[in-house]
Amino acid sequence: MIKFFFGLLFSFVIAGSYAQEKSQKIALVVHGGAGMIKKENMSDKQEKAYQDKINEALKAGYRVLERGGSSIDAVTAAILVMENSPLFNAGKGAVFTYAETNEMDASIMDGETLAAGAVAGVTNIKNPILAALAVKDHSAHVMMAGKGAEKFAQEQGLEIVDPSYFKDENKLNQLRRIKEKEKTELDHSGQQGYRETDPVFHDRKFGTVGAVAVDRKGNLAAGTSTGGMTNKKYGRVGDAPIIGAGTYAENASCGVSATGHGEIFMRAVVAYDIAALMKYKNLSVQEAAEEVVMKKLVQLKGEGGVIAMDKYGNIAMPFNSAGMYRGYIKEGEQPVVLMYK
Amino acid sequence: MIKFFFGLLFSFVIAGSYAQEKSQKIALVVHGGAGMIKKENMSDKQEKAYQDKINEALKAGYRVLERGGSSIDAVTAAILVMENSPLFNAGKGAVFTYAETNEMDASIMDGETLAAGAVAGVTNIKNPILAALAVKDHSAHVMMAGKGAEKFAQEQGLEIVDPSYFKDENKLNQLRRIKEKEKTELDHSGQQGYRETDPVFHDRKFGTVGAVAVDRKGNLAAGTSTGGMTNKKYGRVGDAPIIGAGTYAENASCGVSATGHGEIFMRAVVAYDIAALMKYKNLSVQEAAEEVVMKKLVQLKGEGGVIAMDKYGNIAMPFNSAGMYRGYIKEGEQPVVLMYK
Repeated sequence: MIKFFFGLLFSFVIAGSYAQEKSQKIALVVHGGAGMIKKENMSDKQEKAYQDKINEALKAGYRVLERGGSSIDAVTAAILVMENSPLFNAGKGAVFTYAETNEMDASIMDGETLAAGAVAGVTNIKNPILAALAVKDHSAHVMMAGKGAEKFAQEQGLEIVDPSYFKDENKLNQLRRIKEKEKTELDHSGQQGYRETDPVFHDRKFGTVGAVAVDRKGNLAAGTSTGGMTNKKYGRVGDAPIIGAGTYAENASCGVSATGHGEIFMRAVVAYDIAALMKYKNLSVQEAAEEVVMKKLVQLKGEGGVIAMDKYGNIAMPFNSAGMYRGYIKEGEQPVVLMYK
Repeated sequence: MIKFFFGLLFSFVIAGSYAQEKSQKIALVVHGGAGMIKKENMSDKQEKAYQDKINEALKAGYRVLERGGSSIDAVTAAILVMENSPLFNAGKGAVFTYAETNEMDASIMDGETLAAGAVAGVTNIKNPILAALAVKDHSAHVMMAGKGAEKFAQEQGLEIVDPSYFKDENKLNQLRRIKEKEKTELDHSGQQGYRETDPVFHDRKFGTVGAVAVDRKGNLAAGTSTGGMTNKKYGRVGDAPIIGAGTYAENASCGVSATGHGEIFMRAVVAYDIAALMKYKNLSVQEAAEEVVMKKLVQLKGEGGVIAMDKYGNIAMPFNSAGMYRGYIKEGEQPVVLMYK
């Protein structure tokens, strides 16, 4: 009788957790950077290339979620697709520093445990997001920089490439045009915000990729990867590898990945501020993300945007720039890919 | 008549702003790190050395405020005293990395403008806090790392020293004891929190110096400087140079400098979380700082503490470790220096 009772109880527990699992809808949102992304600057061919690649990233991440994988793995899968494409300023497509090198940053965070990993200023790791993941999973640290981060990645068995892997004539020409322009202009916008209206200046600043996912268990994760700012000097680090600025994930509030003028995003602690507004002022993810991107950042002249999602799969994608490459999939719905306002 | 009217108006405005200036009390709070700081581990001589040096730091910063200087300059002056002393894990007293080098981090933030500067992993800059200040004042960036940051500091005319300046037999012995101990133990606490109870392990982790000040104009500033964690590897970056984690300042809420297990402090976005609780939940600086240090960090097993101050000079100094070197001066009061619980 007792055995029967426990058997019955066990069945209820199983059925209950199964029902809960079923009720948790999976979702994924990605971005490929914000900036002067306007219909009139884009050929049909370019437009299609971006659409296809964002779709591919969404599908790669979503497949992980569908199979019951974790949001961390889904975020990683989506970002890998974008890092391996020359279209975005991250991984293969990373822009050039002043010294004509490529210095990449990435970070990832698990919303269930608040475990996080980040790398800054790495030059020879094929996929910086995998290095950030390894820091999270296989070290006692959260952030590693430069040669030390590269040594760690190598010891972890990650793919190390010759820096020439990141070289690209178009990006090199872009760097040289910017250098030329900066020589003749003294319009240094500094920390007080951007002032350049030339698309070249904009595009160099706001390239980043990122993803936020929620899995069957209702766990959020977020990740961000970037080549930083074209023509950056002095080992500049932006917001992408900073937990709280470029990336944050916490089941109690939301997951966020940001893209924009990194200096302002760091000073505004953008990603965590959205989480804090949800936790402490009971704003929705949409209200919180808009408050930070459309008010606080606009006041600070911080151009860019974010993707943000709560554990119920509610998605916000506000940006205050001309456009932002972005897309999402929610369970039972068709993927959506957008670029312009 | 109109001239007289404007003259009168002008007098009122002057008198009004003078009165406001007079009513703004200046204040300064500093810390010299948290950890296994217990009366029974400390000789009278050691105790006096720490007391004297903290007093000296307080006086150096307070003099700046008394003369009408800015909170940024006061914070810098106080931190310089501690960086130039071998007693604290910052500047001259910076601990050793695994490779027997010294890699220092620092950051500073202006609560009026939210302008900020930080350096990470620098090895030859005598005073990392001055490099952070230079990044804030003389670059378009917020954070620079490694060789690039050193190049920038040199171009800015900051004092560059031979790395042997930071060498010290006691610290080197401490490193070797830790290495020896780690070889025989596999108690890697990882991101989930500390587990070591040996003071050697504690002391290596939580050394940092910091200061928060409010000036006559009611502007807050905060700064932090550290040698990081003894035996750190792989270009590890902790919370000290992270705006939002180790340092934050915003006139609308508070200034904060943190000291503790950096990895956990980064994941909890400690400094900005205190500011957010004040802004969004209307907590006092004491309530907000205690909420983060005594609840959130304790849950995450993040040992350490913070100093925090609002623009009215209300000061909080909570810590969840055995002790924290700390002290403050408020206008019209005697300086207070404390170490233990």
